[in-house]
Amino acid sequence: MTAIRYDGPACALPLTDTQRVQLGHGSGGKMSAALIRDHFLPVLGNHYLSQLADGAVVPIGNRRLVVSTDSFVVSPLEFPGGNIGTLAVHGTLNDVAMMGGDPLYLTAGFVLEEGLSLDVLDRVVRTMGHCADEAGVQLIAGDTKVVERGKADGMFINTTGIGLLDATFHPGPARAREGDVILVSGALGRHGMAIMAVREGLAFESTITSDTANLTPLVALLRAAASEGIATLRDPTRGGLASALNEIAQASNVGMELDEAALPIPAEVAAACEMLGLDPLYVANEGVLMAIVRPEKAEAALEALRTHPAGAEACVVGRVVSDHPRYVVLRTAIGGSRVVDLLPGDQLPRIC
Amino acid sequence: MTAIRYDGPACALPLTDTQRVQLGHGSGGKMSAALIRDHFLPVLGNHYLSQLADGAVVPIGNRRLVVSTDSFVVSPLEFPGGNIGTLAVHGTLNDVAMMGGDPLYLTAGFVLEEGLSLDVLDRVVRTMGHCADEAGVQLIAGDTKVVERGKADGMFINTTGIGLLDATFHPGPARAREGDVILVSGALGRHGMAIMAVREGLAFESTITSDTANLTPLVALLRAAASEGIATLRDPTRGGLASALNEIAQASNVGMELDEAALPIPAEVAAACEMLGLDPLYVANEGVLMAIVRPEKAEAALEALRTHPAGAEACVVGRVVSDHPRYVVLRTAIGGSRVVDLLPGDQLPRIC
Repeated sequence: MTAIRYDGPACALPLTDTQRVQLGHGSGGKMSAALIRDHFLPVLGNHYLSQLADGAVVPIGNRRLVVSTDSFVVSPLEFPGGNIGTLAVHGTLNDVAMMGGDPLYLTAGFVLEEGLSLDVLDRVVRTMGHCADEAGVQLIAGDTKVVERGKADGMFINTTGIGLLDATFHPGPARAREGDVILVSGALGRHGMAIMAVREGLAFESTITSDTANLTPLVALLRAAASEGIATLRDPTRGGLASALNEIAQASNVGMELDEAALPIPAEVAAACEMLGLDPLYVANEGVLMAIVRPEKAEAALEALRTHPAGAEACVVGRVVSDHPRYVVLRTAIGGSRVVDLLPGDQLPRIC
Repeated sequence: MTAIRYDGPACALPLTDTQRVQLGHGSGGKMSAALIRDHFLPVLGNHYLSQLADGAVVPIGNRRLVVSTDSFVVSPLEFPGGNIGTLAVHGTLNDVAMMGGDPLYLTAGFVLEEGLSLDVLDRVVRTMGHCADEAGVQLIAGDTKVVERGKADGMFINTTGIGLLDATFHPGPARAREGDVILVSGALGRHGMAIMAVREGLAFESTITSDTANLTPLVALLRAAASEGIATLRDPTRGGLASALNEIAQASNVGMELDEAALPIPAEVAAACEMLGLDPLYVANEGVLMAIVRPEKAEAALEALRTHPAGAEACVVGRVVSDHPRYVVLRTAIGGSRVVDLLPGDQLPRIC
C-alpha cells in the first residue's frame, strides 16, 4: 500500500458556458454543489432536501422511514468486479444504511436504449436479483422505458431504497466533533480505478476489481459495538474520501486531519492514478465504509469491523480537530501538509 | 366529440432482431409484457413484482405503504400544457393514488445531458415544485447525474412515490366482475396527441394541450361517494384506455365492452389521430381517471366526479361482461363490433 501526492488540476475544469449543463455538474464536487444550490434548492428546498444528505428520514404513521434515491450511469456497463446492476443495488442500500436505516425495499427504473443487447440486460438483471437477495431486501416495483438508438448510452438505472430507522442509532453529517477518529473499512480507490483501467485499456500485473459491496453487515457490527459512539457514517462514492470529508467538515463545522501514510491505497490503484494524473483521495469507492467515531469507541469499532471479511483491513486514517474548521488537511508522508479541498469539477465522469 | 375507427397497423411493428432491445419493448403493449415476462420476472419475480401492478403495497411497522416508481423520457421536454416535470410529479402521484394510497412523499432522480439549457432545467424544476405543492406532497430526496453530450436526450427523470394505504379502500386490477360499469373522468387522447402535434408540426384551430393533472382529488371524491363500490382504478397513460382495459380484463378474467359512441374523444384529437393513422384508444392520457364501479354505485360515482372541474365531463364508456373473458370488444357507432387487443409494439414512442 502506498499513497501518492496529487498537485495537478482535475481532468475536467469548469467551462465558461454558464447557461448550460456541464459534465462537472455531475462531479459530486463544487460544481455539483452549485447546481443544487442555485437551480434546485431555491424552488424545491424544504426541511428534507435542504439537509443535502444522501437521503431523507421521514415520519410515516408512528415510525420513521429512511428513503434514498440514486441514478446510475456508469460507463462501461460491465467492469471487473461488477456491473451497473451491482452498483444500483449496493449504492442505494448503502445510502440507506449510512443514515441509520435497515434497508427493506428497493424500486428500480430502467431507461434502455434501442439496440442494447438482451444478453447484457439479462446479466444486469440477474446481478440485481442476486445482490438484493444477498442483502435481504426486496425489489418491489419497477419500470422500463425504451429510447431510440443514440438517445441514451446502453442503459441507465434509478433505484430508490426504503428502510426503517432504528430508534436508537442516529449517525449524521453534523455530529462530528473534535477528538473523533476517522476510520475506513478497507482499501481506497478500487472502484474508480477499475472503471478507468477498462476505459483507458491499462494493464497491470493483477486486474483492479471494483470493491462494490453491501455495507449493511458492517453497519450492523458497528452499531452493536459502538452505537452512540458512531457520529457519522458515509460510503465515499462519487468524489471519494476527500469530498465526503469536506461535506462532513462543513456540516459539523470542524477541521479534519488525514495521515497520508495511513491511507490504505493498493499499489495498483496508486500506479494507475499516477499514470492518469488522478488523486486517489477523490476516486470513487463502492464498498468502503467511512465512520467518524468518538475516541473512546474507536478501538471497539475497529475490532468489530475486522471481524467481517469486508472490514478485515479497517484502519484509522485521521481525526477531527478544532483547527482550520471546515477544512480537510492531509499530513503528508514527508512531513508537510496540504489542504484537500472539494474539486471544482469532474476528476472521473460516469463512474457510478 | 367524435370517435374514429382504426383498422391499420401500429406505427412500429416488432422487428425480427430478438437479441436486442427494440422500441416496441417500451410500448406498454405485448412486447413490453414479453420483456417483463421473459427478462425480469424469471430472476426478480416475487410476490410484489409478479402482480405487474403500477406499484406495490408493502408492510412497514404496523402500516402499509404504497410505493410506485416511473421514469420519464418524453420528447420534446416541453409541450402545450406541461413539461417532463409535470409528468414526473403527476404520473407517479397518480399511480400511488390509483392503488388506494394517499401520496405523501416523492423522490426525484435526474439524468442530465451535457449541454442542456439551464433555463429548461429551471422551468422543469419550478414546475415540479409547483405540482408537488399543489398536490400536498413533499420532494424528500433527489439525485443528479450528468452524461456527455449525445449520451442522453436532454434529460430523463425518475420519480418514486410513497403513500399510506387507506385501510378500508382496496381498488385492484383483479376485482372487476360482470355487471360493473366502466367510467372515465374526461376527454381521451389529449396528452399523446399534444405531444404528436408538436413533433409532427400539426396545426389545428385550437392547440391540443396535454391533460396532465393530479388525480388524487378525484380519487378522494370517489372514495367518499362509493368506497367499497370501486373495484378498480387506473390512469390510462402509456398504451391508453385500450391497454389498461386489456390488463384488467386479463387480471380479473372478465370481458369488457366499450361503446364507441360514448367515448369522449375531442374533435381535434380525432382529427389528429386520423391524420397520423393512430387509434385514440391507444393514445396516452395523463389526467384521466378510469374507474370500474359496481352498478349500484355508478351513479353516485359519476355525480361525485362531476363536482370537480377535472371530472366535469365524466361519463360511462362501457361495462364488464361475462362473454369473451379476457377480451375487450368495441361496439361501434354503426352497429358492428371489433376486438380491441393489446398492440404488439409502439404506436407512440417517448410519450411520457
